[in-house]
Amino acid sequence: MTTQNDLAADWLQSVRWNSLEDRLDLLDQRLLPEQIVYLELTTAEQVWDAIKQLAVRGAPAIGIAAAFGVHLGARAFDGSREALLAEVGRLCDYLATSRPTAVNLFWALDRMRARGEALLGGSADTSVEAAKQALLAEARLIQAEDEETCRLIGEHALELFEDGMGVLTHCNAGGLATARYGTALAPMYLAKEKGLSLKVFADETRPVLQGARLTAFELQQAGVDVTLICDNMAGAVMAKGWVQAVIVGTDRVAANGDVANKIGTYSVAVLAKAHGIPFYVACPMSTIDLTTPTGADIPIEERHEDEVTQGFGKRTAPEGVKVYNPAFDVTPNEYVTAIITEKGVIRAPYDVNLKKLFK
Amino acid sequence: MTTQNDLAADWLQSVRWNSLEDRLDLLDQRLLPEQIVYLELTTAEQVWDAIKQLAVRGAPAIGIAAAFGVHLGARAFDGSREALLAEVGRLCDYLATSRPTAVNLFWALDRMRARGEALLGGSADTSVEAAKQALLAEARLIQAEDEETCRLIGEHALELFEDGMGVLTHCNAGGLATARYGTALAPMYLAKEKGLSLKVFADETRPVLQGARLTAFELQQAGVDVTLICDNMAGAVMAKGWVQAVIVGTDRVAANGDVANKIGTYSVAVLAKAHGIPFYVACPMSTIDLTTPTGADIPIEERHEDEVTQGFGKRTAPEGVKVYNPAFDVTPNEYVTAIITEKGVIRAPYDVNLKKLFK
Repeated sequence: MTTQNDLAADWLQSVRWNSLEDRLDLLDQRLLPEQIVYLELTTAEQVWDAIKQLAVRGAPAIGIAAAFGVHLGARAFDGSREALLAEVGRLCDYLATSRPTAVNLFWALDRMRARGEALLGGSADTSVEAAKQALLAEARLIQAEDEETCRLIGEHALELFEDGMGVLTHCNAGGLATARYGTALAPMYLAKEKGLSLKVFADETRPVLQGARLTAFELQQAGVDVTLICDNMAGAVMAKGWVQAVIVGTDRVAANGDVANKIGTYSVAVLAKAHGIPFYVACPMSTIDLTTPTGADIPIEERHEDEVTQGFGKRTAPEGVKVYNPAFDVTPNEYVTAIITEKGVIRAPYDVNLKKLFK
Repeated sequence: MTTQNDLAADWLQSVRWNSLEDRLDLLDQRLLPEQIVYLELTTAEQVWDAIKQLAVRGAPAIGIAAAFGVHLGARAFDGSREALLAEVGRLCDYLATSRPTAVNLFWALDRMRARGEALLGGSADTSVEAAKQALLAEARLIQAEDEETCRLIGEHALELFEDGMGVLTHCNAGGLATARYGTALAPMYLAKEKGLSLKVFADETRPVLQGARLTAFELQQAGVDVTLICDNMAGAVMAKGWVQAVIVGTDRVAANGDVANKIGTYSVAVLAKAHGIPFYVACPMSTIDLTTPTGADIPIEERHEDEVTQGFGKRTAPEGVKVYNPAFDVTPNEYVTAIITEKGVIRAPYDVNLKKLFK
């Protein structure tokens, strides 16, 4: 099922529909950065497994993969229009169980379910064969829209950057997690396309090292000038005058502009402020949650101590030592210079300006 | 030559003279935290190897080990008083080559050389046998004095702490690096002895993880309440209100109070200031270098990228990626609340008060 194959595009695509072979090719992110291997998926079950086993990660990328999974399941189905509609519902329910907390996954599957209803339900008269192809088209549309969202975020972010600037980022909010470009990394890709040069510093991002394994990897693949540092070097790099902007992604933005993101983001924000460096947060509109009043209302997951004590395949801390391992932290809005979405750049006061954005 | 044996003292001693067996027992720090193994050394050559191979680390501990090495070499020597004096000189020259940049090593060996001269040179009349024993006594004195220095640093530091406080430290300035107690960790040991309770947070300290491998380990061994965190969690832990003081060691204090220490110390200092938390530096007087005007005059060693990209026997970053890996950073004096030495607590203005200390 797996092969190491050449890249179809001249950029690294985590989820791609292979039209020649009529299958889903999924970059196995578990093997990065050492190996670039695409899983070749032809059934909904294989897609479920790939999501469950973390071969694909990043909320938008998971949603896109699942949407293609609905098509793969539907095309294998033999039956009437009514039976196919029921099968689409079953496939969506099934694929939703692959990662129970992934909001983008449910969103993408709800959209596929609605598309199935429009094609096959009530007064519709699409043929079974045409409906199967239309579900594929819908998955491709979800993917194309995500790429467009990321491109727009990148365009808006790039307005804040200048040729030759040093930009520091934390964790991975990159192309691997989305259809293309990513959120925080989108301006780096677009700068490259436009012939501008940014000097990127990537925090390795302990404990799981997404910065080292993914961000440094995907930017290096794209030919972007990237330098890997340990998280505790961010202050020293700023003090040297090498950084003119910080940009990160986010898991959730509260109504007051507080931002939850990978652990360590808050430290970077405080360091940026101390050095007079702007701190930007890049995200799609869907990440802004006006029903969460402040960052204090965002639950912070604590993860297993093994990530800290033996994260490198080898024990690096004494047995039985106490560990505090939060997955995220909250950066208060006072540290956030601007939030960059596909609709543009939002600045304080966030409680007012985020609401406006949704009107 | 190596055995896993019970501890002679009820605390973990990195360098200890075994009087029963007339040998030097040296804790092999390379095997920590997984194994507590003492090397059993009976010759100067074995001591040289142990220093060279990093079985012993920490400037004071290296100096103490080398001093015992002079005794071990001298006791094996058979000859006249004059010949023994020459042998002591040769042993000091030889042991000095084991770690060419360790200032404490040279200092300890110069002291052993001077002791040899006093015992065996010119008008002295100590017997060969007595001189060999006096060299052992001198090594034990160097060790005892280092313990006393560390204890005094701890006593002065403890005046700044209160029962129940949260204290964050970075890297390892602990008992393993000294005769006992360490510098930054001395108040934690003394608090324990006095029945006070401090809640210690130990930064793991990437890339070499001295905080995880050594600080968390030795405090855990001593029964101190220690919690291991990744470096990028320091800000989040401070924001939670869990930290009332930061205390770190230092490799060199400049005449103006700028402090060079393990990479990441500067970031911690900036975070402490942003949270209104005092930032203390603990060190013996010998670490204060009035001939270095400011931190800008301290050269910062850059180390090999492999420490960052494959520090734990496993590659965690892409091949060929650029890496910035400075071993130290400089914390400007404005971030230093106080410098704590065996002579007491020094505060700003450091340019004036550090000079006074040496008068």
